Amino acid sequence: MDYTAILAEIADECRPLARSGRVADYIAPLAAVGLGPFGMALRTVEGEEFSVGDAAVPFSIQSIAKVLGLAHAMELVGDDIWSRVGREPSGTPFNSLVQLETERGIPRNPMINAGALVVVDATLAAAPSNGDHLLAFVRRAADDETLGYDLAVAEAERETAHGNRALAHLLKAYGVLQGDPDAVIDAYCRMCSLSMSCAELCRAFTFLARAGLSPSGARVVSPRHAKRINAVMLTCGVYDEAGDFAYRVGLPAKSGVGGGIVAVLPGVFVATVWSPGLGPKGNSLAGTMALELLTTKTGASIF
Amino acid sequence: MDYTAILAEIADECRPLARSGRVADYIAPLAAVGLGPFGMALRTVEGEEFSVGDAAVPFSIQSIAKVLGLAHAMELVGDDIWSRVGREPSGTPFNSLVQLETERGIPRNPMINAGALVVVDATLAAAPSNGDHLLAFVRRAADDETLGYDLAVAEAERETAHGNRALAHLLKAYGVLQGDPDAVIDAYCRMCSLSMSCAELCRAFTFLARAGLSPSGARVVSPRHAKRINAVMLTCGVYDEAGDFAYRVGLPAKSGVGGGIVAVLPGVFVATVWSPGLGPKGNSLAGTMALELLTTKTGASIF
Amino acid sequence: MDYTAILAEIADECRPLARSGRVADYIAPLAAVGLGPFGMALRTVEGEEFSVGDAAVPFSIQSIAKVLGLAHAMELVGDDIWSRVGREPSGTPFNSLVQLETERGIPRNPMINAGALVVVDATLAAAPSNGDHLLAFVRRAADDETLGYDLAVAEAERETAHGNRALAHLLKAYGVLQGDPDAVIDAYCRMCSLSMSCAELCRAFTFLARAGLSPSGARVVSPRHAKRINAVMLTCGVYDEAGDFAYRVGLPAKSGVGGGIVAVLPGVFVATVWSPGLGPKGNSLAGTMALELLTTKTGASIF
Amino acid sequence: MDYTAILAEIADECRPLARSGRVADYIAPLAAVGLGPFGMALRTVEGEEFSVGDAAVPFSIQSIAKVLGLAHAMELVGDDIWSRVGREPSGTPFNSLVQLETERGIPRNPMINAGALVVVDATLAAAPSNGDHLLAFVRRAADDETLGYDLAVAEAERETAHGNRALAHLLKAYGVLQGDPDAVIDAYCRMCSLSMSCAELCRAFTFLARAGLSPSGARVVSPRHAKRINAVMLTCGVYDEAGDFAYRVGLPAKSGVGGGIVAVLPGVFVATVWSPGLGPKGNSLAGTMALELLTTKTGASIF
Repeated sequence: MDYTAILAEIADECRPLARSGRVADYIAPLAAVGLGPFGMALRTVEGEEFSVGDAAVPFSIQSIAKVLGLAHAMELVGDDIWSRVGREPSGTPFNSLVQLETERGIPRNPMINAGALVVVDATLAAAPSNGDHLLAFVRRAADDETLGYDLAVAEAERETAHGNRALAHLLKAYGVLQGDPDAVIDAYCRMCSLSMSCAELCRAFTFLARAGLSPSGARVVSPRHAKRINAVMLTCGVYDEAGDFAYRVGLPAKSGVGGGIVAVLPGVFVATVWSPGLGPKGNSLAGTMALELLTTKTGASIF
Repeated sequence: MDYTAILAEIADECRPLARSGRVADYIAPLAAVGLGPFGMALRTVEGEEFSVGDAAVPFSIQSIAKVLGLAHAMELVGDDIWSRVGREPSGTPFNSLVQLETERGIPRNPMINAGALVVVDATLAAAPSNGDHLLAFVRRAADDETLGYDLAVAEAERETAHGNRALAHLLKAYGVLQGDPDAVIDAYCRMCSLSMSCAELCRAFTFLARAGLSPSGARVVSPRHAKRINAVMLTCGVYDEAGDFAYRVGLPAKSGVGGGIVAVLPGVFVATVWSPGLGPKGNSLAGTMALELLTTKTGASIF
Repeated sequence: MDYTAILAEIADECRPLARSGRVADYIAPLAAVGLGPFGMALRTVEGEEFSVGDAAVPFSIQSIAKVLGLAHAMELVGDDIWSRVGREPSGTPFNSLVQLETERGIPRNPMINAGALVVVDATLAAAPSNGDHLLAFVRRAADDETLGYDLAVAEAERETAHGNRALAHLLKAYGVLQGDPDAVIDAYCRMCSLSMSCAELCRAFTFLARAGLSPSGARVVSPRHAKRINAVMLTCGVYDEAGDFAYRVGLPAKSGVGGGIVAVLPGVFVATVWSPGLGPKGNSLAGTMALELLTTKTGASIF
Repeated sequence: MDYTAILAEIADECRPLARSGRVADYIAPLAAVGLGPFGMALRTVEGEEFSVGDAAVPFSIQSIAKVLGLAHAMELVGDDIWSRVGREPSGTPFNSLVQLETERGIPRNPMINAGALVVVDATLAAAPSNGDHLLAFVRRAADDETLGYDLAVAEAERETAHGNRALAHLLKAYGVLQGDPDAVIDAYCRMCSLSMSCAELCRAFTFLARAGLSPSGARVVSPRHAKRINAVMLTCGVYDEAGDFAYRVGLPAKSGVGGGIVAVLPGVFVATVWSPGLGPKGNSLAGTMALELLTTKTGASIF
């Protein structure tokens, strides 16, 4: 497969769309990015790397980090995590409180904000108190000790996190959140501020295409966990657009409000794309189109 | 892969569970089946067939027929079908009216009752009025002219279809249903009364594992449609248990209240299982366990 | 109190508003009325009658008839009616199905469509099968044997009653409706087609201002029932605008989509108003303003 | 009317029920009260006072204080308060978040927690920063400078206010709450901790029966506001039981989770009752029965 040529074609076809959509503007550091950038990278399980456009520019991965947080929590507490969070598509927007109220405080899945807060809470309780174990996990997954947070983003998130604070207090009211809501919000905002380029993201997610192994071959999660995290991404990874995305793209994927999307073809490759203009459901417009073109042009699909 | 031995093991492990759960009892013909039966069949894309237990006993496929109805409609009206029905997981039970009311009468997906009614309505409008085009389609997909309805089931469904009649009239009130609600209900009840054995179901669904080809190699749907129907099954096929099923089983699948489940591993096999005892979300208990064991024992998974 | 002068003032102030709002147009006979008419009548418990404008023009009383249906049902089956319908404000539009689904098919109150269907069902089951007992009850309440249905309205309602048929079938699915949904819909559409002028409506509702007695002094309902029907009107009578109406007008009242409103000051008067232009919640715009002016100018209020 | 004898009869009939229901136990000071107490007081607009049982024992008035908060806010900011809070019955429990989400953060009415938080927020913004203006207002309404908070209750509320904090942050996320959520929660918890006996409550609410005048004849609110607050109490004062309460009791009323209820017959009397055992909707069981008996025995009703 000539991925170099395919990525070049995709970039040509998607660049006009990279000027459409709405950039997330609820915090200044995201708003400052603006419409326009487009980058894409692909990394095969054999280690070949391809990229096009702004694939080396770091961006705020935002909700994509929820997958890394889940993988970390599953390693720490195993299947116990599922006693406090479900794994069903939500049928409602990512930040909805309605579902929590009708289902006694158990978030539908770990990819919506409420579920990610529970995952963070579980991780805080299970990890030793010294150091930042999530960041260590992410660096290990990516074989890259230079990865880190964008603390200006983390601070801006913290200041405007009224909706997430509402979720955290509601989870606390139901007894589903065990720690202090403020501490959970702090850790959550930090997690979402992880900053990576498309190329770096490909390496950090390689374990999901490679049955749990990092680029260097180190074990990140078990093969069973890798499969299952892919299943959770497919049904819950792109907010309330999971069905449409599976229909059009046909790959497990996770998006972030910063405009990034990671997609996995198990056993074959990880593909990442970044373009900040979002569609009505909060997923990158050009990014979704790029992944649809990728699977159309390569015939890649899990179906 | 020694499927004969694997199916035998699975049957041994699942038979005790075949005595658990609740048999659908809203109509007499389903209630009469009772707990106990267990059958399973598997058919590879190369045409090898394996089975165990009650795999040759015909049963009411019920909602499994919604997949055949959708495939038929996609051939008749193409992508236009998606202007009147979504393809997102619903996050609510299969017969919910709430979602329709909040989303202006557009059913979330064609696997819930409201969506299947719209699919039937579209098919009635598009097909020539002579003959039963759905049944002809199903027979063609299965290469089997003997397949047919269980008219006692169809009649019993029709008499107790108050909930579905409520859906049909609501869809009509929103202008989403175009035909006569009573005619749509009749066709829907007939479709759900299709009667097949596990072995027959494997053949009828072969086109989804074989890029659109029937057992005899005849084209049933396009490769593109085959992929996309699998995507819809994965995100919406087992009611409000799609995420859990994807996590545990990892295959696109569709269940019916008669206790049947069809699962597809694209390019490899179709597996079907039947056991009437249902779990709380309406899926066969022993059937779900059997498919989970199948993917565990064979390592099969789309993830 | 110089009601003649007060009504004249009110009419002057409201006539401009009688050209605003939206006339119900879901059936031709209502759409044909058009914007413009304004009539108002007031009848004291002593029997004095006052009117202004189009107070003698008959109009379709629509949902106002639900109060008469409830009064009739309470006389027939007493407090048993409350085992199948609640008496709480709904917090949702008058034709919502959501509430039924979350509360197991028990309509919130008899003033929303679902509740009125249950009331009609109970009445059909309790009344002898000969003759039209509801119409006899209404004529007795009003001391007027000439009152009757507008059968063109009834027929048009029946043809477009998809939303109400959805409610009836859903109620039937829950076992809350006991009779045949089609028969209940027929009786309901007939009831809503009752045709009266403002002046006639004042007489038909006199029993609610006069502790259960008709204009001629005949007993229509018990004093206890009269009070309680007033309470139901106050909390549930003007759809999802009950709180605002109580705040601004301060009287128990019931509105209809034909543009009529009846208001009761227990022990003092019945006031009725008709103007077809409806506001966003389905209540007559000029009619609501007229009643607000009436209570402002007279100091009348139950509070 | 021999109120002394009537109150004695009511107390006899209600005392057995005072041992039923569930005492609010989410904070220790409320749980410590226990089942058993029953007190009732009645004060006519002429100033006659009657009481029976534990009518002189102070208790935590809790949500009853929301009426005083609303009256205070209406004096401070007038009708502007209604731009940020509705006045419709909610159709949902008092602490629901669902309604906020579907109605863009505007609470349905000032008697549910979300609405009361908005009222407190408006008051904090409008009142001069020196001193406790709400407490001054309450003392003025009651002509009683000794009234005050139970600070142990206020502190316990603050510590367990996760659900209310969720509401406050959600309101902040919608921009409906303007101040700091923590400051609003503090003031809200203090307001709910007001401690009064039945006899004191009768005096503090006299202005609602007396067209806005306190026991001493001082103006507390305008006559127009007094009427309108009574209207809000009738449609929204007893949580999701407003319709049933209006039907059975027929008076504007407000209940609190401490087991108190205040009812008003405009122009005639204020009646208060206290008994901590709550029914399923959060209203005092014996208290509701006592008020129903009061209106049955005296014929008092606004209907």
